[in-house]
Amino acid sequence: MAKNRIGRQTIACAAPPVVIGWGNLAGLKEQQGPLGEQFDETDIDPYFGEETWEQAEIYMQRRALHHALHRAGRRVEELDCMLAGDLLNQCISSSFAARGSDVPFLGIYTACATMSQGLGLAALLLDGGYADCAAAVTSSHFCSAERQYRMPLPYGGQRAPTAQWTATAAGAVILAAAGQGPRITQVTFGKIVDWGITDQTNMGAAMAPAAYDSLSAYFRDTETKPTDFDLIVTGDLGHLGGKILREFLEKDGLGTSNCTDCGMLLFDKEAQDVHAGGSGAGCSAAVLTAELLPKLAAGEYKKILFCATGALLSPISAQQKESIPGVCHVICLEGAEI
Amino acid sequence: MAKNRIGRQTIACAAPPVVIGWGNLAGLKEQQGPLGEQFDETDIDPYFGEETWEQAEIYMQRRALHHALHRAGRRVEELDCMLAGDLLNQCISSSFAARGSDVPFLGIYTACATMSQGLGLAALLLDGGYADCAAAVTSSHFCSAERQYRMPLPYGGQRAPTAQWTATAAGAVILAAAGQGPRITQVTFGKIVDWGITDQTNMGAAMAPAAYDSLSAYFRDTETKPTDFDLIVTGDLGHLGGKILREFLEKDGLGTSNCTDCGMLLFDKEAQDVHAGGSGAGCSAAVLTAELLPKLAAGEYKKILFCATGALLSPISAQQKESIPGVCHVICLEGAEI
Repeated sequence: MAKNRIGRQTIACAAPPVVIGWGNLAGLKEQQGPLGEQFDETDIDPYFGEETWEQAEIYMQRRALHHALHRAGRRVEELDCMLAGDLLNQCISSSFAARGSDVPFLGIYTACATMSQGLGLAALLLDGGYADCAAAVTSSHFCSAERQYRMPLPYGGQRAPTAQWTATAAGAVILAAAGQGPRITQVTFGKIVDWGITDQTNMGAAMAPAAYDSLSAYFRDTETKPTDFDLIVTGDLGHLGGKILREFLEKDGLGTSNCTDCGMLLFDKEAQDVHAGGSGAGCSAAVLTAELLPKLAAGEYKKILFCATGALLSPISAQQKESIPGVCHVICLEGAEI
Repeated sequence: MAKNRIGRQTIACAAPPVVIGWGNLAGLKEQQGPLGEQFDETDIDPYFGEETWEQAEIYMQRRALHHALHRAGRRVEELDCMLAGDLLNQCISSSFAARGSDVPFLGIYTACATMSQGLGLAALLLDGGYADCAAAVTSSHFCSAERQYRMPLPYGGQRAPTAQWTATAAGAVILAAAGQGPRITQVTFGKIVDWGITDQTNMGAAMAPAAYDSLSAYFRDTETKPTDFDLIVTGDLGHLGGKILREFLEKDGLGTSNCTDCGMLLFDKEAQDVHAGGSGAGCSAAVLTAELLPKLAAGEYKKILFCATGALLSPISAQQKESIPGVCHVICLEGAEI
């Protein structure tokens, strides 16, 4: 077996890379939510001063990276590579945001699991001695996503009670081979899991089996259980998918009191009309960078699992009545003090 | 500097991973081209027996992987991870093809540079001791791509003389930490390069600056020149973009007699009506697996650079009059004997 693997699916970093900076930007609805005060930048304008929603999302990625580099005390030229992806067709938010940055670019896509995949790959590039400093970036925008995946916003279509609300948010994380900050110690890349859910207004249910599969693999490979962690944060199963995942884990006799979900944390369930919770690649990226990493850096959490989940459908696959494949990548983050 | 880097942008594998298998599948037009006899599987049916072009592309990826695993003498369960991407919105060919495979899945996207990116990342995952066996897979389909990027096929729109023909082809490569076969020795991940080309019917011109940028970085970092290699194969600049790249290199005083392009190799310029050549993520993957890897394995080539290039536009970005960012990842492949 490869020297840095534990069990079938998990990778252990030999020299755990350090999260030296993080940054984000969020929209008005996100600013009005429970984490509103914790974002680096918010705007009441859904266009963020740009002319189109797509250009807004490009701006968002640039600003999230700017804030992350600022916090890390690094310049963009110090990045050895950048891993980025988003929900727009052909991931244009990411590639267009990287124009002019002069940094080697790796495009990644596993829908809302993109931040976990980016963190995992960046960590291994550093751990393996292939880079000294790398960034993982992602974003989503409610308006660009609604138009692309569902229907034009002016149509005013009614949302199903199981539907989640695509977050308008971007997040960026800077990893370095050495430094002060939380560390990425283990990575479990997930398999494609498809239990046959075809309802694209219930993506939490479609992704919950993938989260269960990857978490089970992680616990098996590392011989740990949920209660060994301060927090297990999926993203973005929302309230419904989160409940399904907890039921799966409980059937295996595992405690789930410390399991939560980025889609549940970003919005206020009672005060904000988001139905089953938040979603979008930017949702887990924003919660990671506004809530989880600061608390890890402050010593409030010692060890958490960040498990972004993605629903790998497209409007065409839905029209062709395909079921929805899910994927979940698990990242073990340990606090600065440990 | 990170221990496995040479210069600013290039990575040298400490224990170069081995290409132990490769496989492909192509459509009728590709079968009628110069490499027609070298494909593992071809079909006169553009649907490959499926009901939609998207399902056909899913089938194509599965079969390419099947042929590659067969040649490698490995079972799919022996793969520690699979890196895959394609041109369809949300990369559904890749994620749907991986359903049921029980292999950790990493979605990647840099358009027609996807095979280079997949090879490069897979090589580093093996070199770093994070995996023992990995696959890189990609595909494109003329019909699904035309409908999505340009116009419905039955509309019969006329193609510009500078336009390239999206290949109907899929390719898969199996890498292992040890074994017999060509090896990946160096990787240069490219930057996003955008010189302001907005004509989406001339993607060769849009991507040529990216190929020039990445190749220049590689030559600078490794202190080599084009004539140190048996072949330098870009993909898919086509006839026009290939000419532009050669002009750039010649202005730097470099010889270009061994420079060619997957988009020039896949189709017969005179006999087949493909205008500026082939393109699509499957084009470079098919040429790599049907022509380049077999010749490396047979000792006919000793050292080549495989440099797939991607145009990172979308129909929306074109409608919004954005220019076309390009990217090119360079992979140095050395023959089995060296």
